[in-house]
Amino acid sequence: MPATSPVPISADRLWSSLMAMAEIGRTPAGGVRRLALSDEDRAARDLLGEWLTAAGLTVRVDDLGNMYARRPGADSAAAPIVFGSHLDTVPTGGRFDGVLGVLGALEVIRALNDAAVRTRAPLEVVNWTNEEGARFAPAMLASGVVAGRFAREEAYAARDQDGRAFGDELTRIGYRGEAANRLRECAGYLEYHVEQGPVLERARTQIGVVEGIEGISWNRIEVTGRAAHAGPTPMPDRRDALVAAARLVLLLRDGAERLRGVRATVGRLDVSPNTINVVPGRVEMSLDVRSPRDDGLEAALSAADRACARVAELDRVEVRRTEFWRSPATPFAQTVIAAVAGAAKSRGFSAKRLWAGAGHDAKYMADRYPAGMIFVPSKDGLSHNEAEWTPPEDCARGAAVLLDAVLALAGAA
Amino acid sequence: MPATSPVPISADRLWSSLMAMAEIGRTPAGGVRRLALSDEDRAARDLLGEWLTAAGLTVRVDDLGNMYARRPGADSAAAPIVFGSHLDTVPTGGRFDGVLGVLGALEVIRALNDAAVRTRAPLEVVNWTNEEGARFAPAMLASGVVAGRFAREEAYAARDQDGRAFGDELTRIGYRGEAANRLRECAGYLEYHVEQGPVLERARTQIGVVEGIEGISWNRIEVTGRAAHAGPTPMPDRRDALVAAARLVLLLRDGAERLRGVRATVGRLDVSPNTINVVPGRVEMSLDVRSPRDDGLEAALSAADRACARVAELDRVEVRRTEFWRSPATPFAQTVIAAVAGAAKSRGFSAKRLWAGAGHDAKYMADRYPAGMIFVPSKDGLSHNEAEWTPPEDCARGAAVLLDAVLALAGAA
Repeated sequence: MPATSPVPISADRLWSSLMAMAEIGRTPAGGVRRLALSDEDRAARDLLGEWLTAAGLTVRVDDLGNMYARRPGADSAAAPIVFGSHLDTVPTGGRFDGVLGVLGALEVIRALNDAAVRTRAPLEVVNWTNEEGARFAPAMLASGVVAGRFAREEAYAARDQDGRAFGDELTRIGYRGEAANRLRECAGYLEYHVEQGPVLERARTQIGVVEGIEGISWNRIEVTGRAAHAGPTPMPDRRDALVAAARLVLLLRDGAERLRGVRATVGRLDVSPNTINVVPGRVEMSLDVRSPRDDGLEAALSAADRACARVAELDRVEVRRTEFWRSPATPFAQTVIAAVAGAAKSRGFSAKRLWAGAGHDAKYMADRYPAGMIFVPSKDGLSHNEAEWTPPEDCARGAAVLLDAVLALAGAA
Repeated sequence: MPATSPVPISADRLWSSLMAMAEIGRTPAGGVRRLALSDEDRAARDLLGEWLTAAGLTVRVDDLGNMYARRPGADSAAAPIVFGSHLDTVPTGGRFDGVLGVLGALEVIRALNDAAVRTRAPLEVVNWTNEEGARFAPAMLASGVVAGRFAREEAYAARDQDGRAFGDELTRIGYRGEAANRLRECAGYLEYHVEQGPVLERARTQIGVVEGIEGISWNRIEVTGRAAHAGPTPMPDRRDALVAAARLVLLLRDGAERLRGVRATVGRLDVSPNTINVVPGRVEMSLDVRSPRDDGLEAALSAADRACARVAELDRVEVRRTEFWRSPATPFAQTVIAAVAGAAKSRGFSAKRLWAGAGHDAKYMADRYPAGMIFVPSKDGLSHNEAEWTPPEDCARGAAVLLDAVLALAGAA
């Protein structure tokens, strides 16, 4: 990092951009509905493109609709430092998740321009297509293709609830670019995001230095008892699948609480036949387990299996757990983590190291390039929620850390 | 009861009738789908009508589609003894629930005819419309109108899932008769039914002498916590509505097990948003409580409220219970109970007194007339199930008890 005074971030300018963008797809409750490849997404992309071009950058679009805007560096042969996030939202999303990372990146460029700071390596702002996965499953689809995780044709074939294909919608909104435009090299990737949890707010800490993205295990648990009439069936004769499932929910929670850093969630639970006067014969439920360490996942899943066995015996039911998806824990690059931590320190912001409990495009970038993330607090830990809130000064702090970390990684010209 | 040798029941004839009727709406799994006022119900009614007419009875149909078949008594001014049940089934029903009571009544008539036994009071066999409530809610709709519990127009307006009205379907199948044909007087009502529970089978007892129909309380319980992202939200920060609901399911079960004769069932449970990676913010569940005594219901509901309060405190959620339907406990008439018990005894069958845990048309009849029921065992306590099974000799035993109880109530000519 240059030993000069810090490049100033304009909190007002960043906030104005955030609020202008939030008008596109604004919901009555003050949130945002801007599904990937919708008309709102097109309008948001058009506005971002105008702003990036006005800031002197050259915008290119790849065959997944990912937008990259390049600011040349002194060493035109150097691999770029890439930073950004996504403009798409969940159906009832907020004004900060994703968009703060993109417009924070724009603010970094504007601030560098104002201060006439030139970097050694080129800089690239990125807006990834369909990060949320809310319209086209899975999430992080376009960064996944760029990172080689998915084939392009898989992405093109993904369909929304109305049967419309990703590829067709990409063409429809005019953002199907060239494969040659994809990100091919990257000396460091940074993604700035709201925390999506209450840890920073609770700790009254300004900056989250993200150490990696936690491992996630998704499981289906089937509990099979015996359906019976709720009237005449005596309590001791029942093999009630819901009573068994209830016991399991509590055991899974207790098990996770005893393991350090592990979270276990039963988010979905479906009862069959789900009728007021029938003792439930079958329950199918989900189990989401997360841990910064893959051995934490294993420990939690072993505890889950012991819980399943115990419930099967106590409640005379069959219990079967099936893991259907696993994403291993992804530690970020120490160089990038150090750049973020150093930036927070030199700006005088309080900082805390933590792991991201949710997926981000940074995960797929970390598979191929040195990557990291910066978090700022989100009020009440809310995200994917119309009530998301991060005040202007918090937004600016994260952008300042992003700027300094980018400078540290890109080098002075 | 006449001090002659008992009137013989033909187990074979009864079984043949049961199996012939089971062909109407037969399912691939060997069960029956014969929803009220469907084409299958019409075919079943037509067949019953033929059999009743062939047995010399006069069939009349009232404005709810209830079928009554009268066998005159010596005293034509006497109020009739009425007995029967229903031919409709749940969507995946069995061959015995309801139909055994109707065809058992037919067998009683045939046996009395064969033995040339004449009664003092007239006899009437009844087939009630839409007992199950599976197609048109609520259950026991037509007997409820006859008993003055519901208005006829309510019944006519009830709609099935496809929007078709009870009144229209009644006309369509040709069973909308005259209001003047309704049951207007009844010196005693008897309903013969499979137990729908495992008590008789477990006790190796042949006949259930039913003392009444239990009180039922139907409740809705809403648990409100706070939805949150399953990834970043630390376990101690959660207000997980499903964890709270799970604790409540177990407390409700434990509470019911401590109260004599009470059963409590959570049959329905719906999670919101019911997504794998979101900590549930809200759960709505049902609570079905049954007891032979109304003070048993009250005790169970008080225990439920204490459980709700405890969960609200432990899990930092809001819990609200609302009772939306209550059917008080309905004791049967001692005269009818005594007739059933006496019949079982004189036939030399083992018998046990018990309460019906499910609703039956006998409940509404009991509101106005002296009523009672006869149960026979059902294999594994199954009902509302394609696998329902009661062997021919058990079916015949119940019909013999019905015959003798009818004779005892109708008196000798």
